Amino acid sequence: MEKKFSYEKLLSFTQSVFQHIGCSSKDALTASLNLLSADLRGVDSHGVARLSGYVRLWEVNRINAKADIKVIHETPSTAVVDGDSGLGLVVAPFAMQVAIDKAKQVGSGWVSVQNSNHFGIAGQYAMMGLDHDMIGIAMTNASALVAPTFSKERMLGTNPIAVAVPAGNEPPFVADFATTTAANGKLEILQRKNQPVPEGWVQNKEGNQSYDAHELKKGGALLPLGSDREHSSHKGYMLGSIVDIFSGVLSGANYGPWVPPFPAYIPMPEQMPGKGIGHFFGAMRIDAFRTADAFKKDMDQWICRFRTAQPINHEEKVIIPGDPEREMEKFRKVDGITLLEDVHNDLMTLSDKFEIKL
Amino acid sequence: MEKKFSYEKLLSFTQSVFQHIGCSSKDALTASLNLLSADLRGVDSHGVARLSGYVRLWEVNRINAKADIKVIHETPSTAVVDGDSGLGLVVAPFAMQVAIDKAKQVGSGWVSVQNSNHFGIAGQYAMMGLDHDMIGIAMTNASALVAPTFSKERMLGTNPIAVAVPAGNEPPFVADFATTTAANGKLEILQRKNQPVPEGWVQNKEGNQSYDAHELKKGGALLPLGSDREHSSHKGYMLGSIVDIFSGVLSGANYGPWVPPFPAYIPMPEQMPGKGIGHFFGAMRIDAFRTADAFKKDMDQWICRFRTAQPINHEEKVIIPGDPEREMEKFRKVDGITLLEDVHNDLMTLSDKFEIKL
Repeated sequence: MEKKFSYEKLLSFTQSVFQHIGCSSKDALTASLNLLSADLRGVDSHGVARLSGYVRLWEVNRINAKADIKVIHETPSTAVVDGDSGLGLVVAPFAMQVAIDKAKQVGSGWVSVQNSNHFGIAGQYAMMGLDHDMIGIAMTNASALVAPTFSKERMLGTNPIAVAVPAGNEPPFVADFATTTAANGKLEILQRKNQPVPEGWVQNKEGNQSYDAHELKKGGALLPLGSDREHSSHKGYMLGSIVDIFSGVLSGANYGPWVPPFPAYIPMPEQMPGKGIGHFFGAMRIDAFRTADAFKKDMDQWICRFRTAQPINHEEKVIIPGDPEREMEKFRKVDGITLLEDVHNDLMTLSDKFEIKL
Repeated sequence: MEKKFSYEKLLSFTQSVFQHIGCSSKDALTASLNLLSADLRGVDSHGVARLSGYVRLWEVNRINAKADIKVIHETPSTAVVDGDSGLGLVVAPFAMQVAIDKAKQVGSGWVSVQNSNHFGIAGQYAMMGLDHDMIGIAMTNASALVAPTFSKERMLGTNPIAVAVPAGNEPPFVADFATTTAANGKLEILQRKNQPVPEGWVQNKEGNQSYDAHELKKGGALLPLGSDREHSSHKGYMLGSIVDIFSGVLSGANYGPWVPPFPAYIPMPEQMPGKGIGHFFGAMRIDAFRTADAFKKDMDQWICRFRTAQPINHEEKVIIPGDPEREMEKFRKVDGITLLEDVHNDLMTLSDKFEIKL
């Protein structure tokens, strides 16, 4: 049975869990705010549904709750951050803040991160630049679930890209998307409903088209954005590769099939070339290009013009990236967050084990 | 009838044409090298096939052959370049060089360009960073041919993204792709063969699926990468939008449906908010993150691992972005460039008109 909780209750519970595994209260709050932002924004697959997964990674010593996160190399506009195996939910905002600070100094800041873990949703970090009148960029690699065009082997993660752009009177433009045709969360919805997946989302372990929502458990793979060669899956493969290179190769993290898996029970890849998983962040100060006022006036016009682009039918209008998530956030902050039975049970187990009241 | 020319002959002819319309010999050479790089790399739609189009833009005073290209705003890591209505083929390398120079100084350089024109292929400028051990990035907006998800209106150009990454013993990784399912050049091939287009490439002016390769002439639109909502066309729409915002809004160029068209006979959009078309360039020094040697060792391993990813069948292996174009370039530099009859006739007309021997 589904169960609804207030945002505040879930936040406080999550914070207590992170403190229980050894995070400082400040880090626990940061991690909880970033984790819960996924639930608020409607990306249920990346929110508290993963809390027990983070705890299991800590249990097998793959997450360091007292990580000493630091800049290990830098220039005026760039840096590499070592996450010291910390929670991605804490490492990522640290690294994005370094990018923002550099942008304040020299116009832009670019930070590649090694030795981190899963960071939740990318959009949350890209949005950190908005209050500073900056464009924010966030990406991460992830364990391999995606087969490149022509291959049956899982070589890339769903490797998301997020870009947040400030506007004036309009709300900001916030794009946040996996570089695959279907995000893993969409597969999970169909798994629960026991429904087939549309053509072009997954292939089986032989590399043939599959309609099975459980295909990933059988050695199959997600398909890159574009689905097949005729619809330019090589472009999705290139996008995922760029995210992998910027996040993994540029930082000295792992990359490609060597990125460590999220589930703690899956063995680590052999002969890993780097440290942990990798992220990449960017911040560009708007007034490093033109005045923020002039930019925002044009950005407002961009948004209004696209919002009123002629629709094909009048039920569905053109959506400005970020609008649906913002509406969901507004609603769930007041109305609360409904958890699926599995997720609720998971949290109850944690609650019993750590003696933290939910 | 098709006709074959040596690279040198086409280069010298193109240079003479650009000089004839008033370019300095240096600018004419730069423009010709960049234009011809498309033919060499097999992107026939963006090479000499467009030469007469550039000349027609000059004839209607939309291209300034004696442009005073300059930086109009800058910080240590960013700049805006005003192209003074110059040839994109000359403006783009100027702007990319600014990005490279800034990267030399402060680790990275990011340049947004206003008041430019069509620049040929994006990959050519991204690759300018390779010799400096830099990652290069290039993108441009273009006149609207693409309908966002849920719309029947053309709002975005094919807005390509190029990223070039140096390697060690392996050749570099060079991705260069339109953010649509099908590039315009692929439609043109089917037009000439009088063949239908695959599902998911174009829609008609009502927003319905079309199989007609001539649909764009009838008010139809190209579809964003992903093709339809079920296959995440909203991601292609977001990518095209990001390119448009970085190139157009950030620089003060035109954006969305206001980007000026390439064909000189098409009237300019009304109430244009900016100047010309916009580009965006980036350069990141590898050693602003980690030593170039360590990076290249990993990049070689990345490339080798992906090249040997298990193929679905043994005729088609995983392709490293940039490999096919590099092979084509090697071949055509020696073997020459075959022009379609239309393109050849076009050049012969220019040859007669300007009295430049082809």
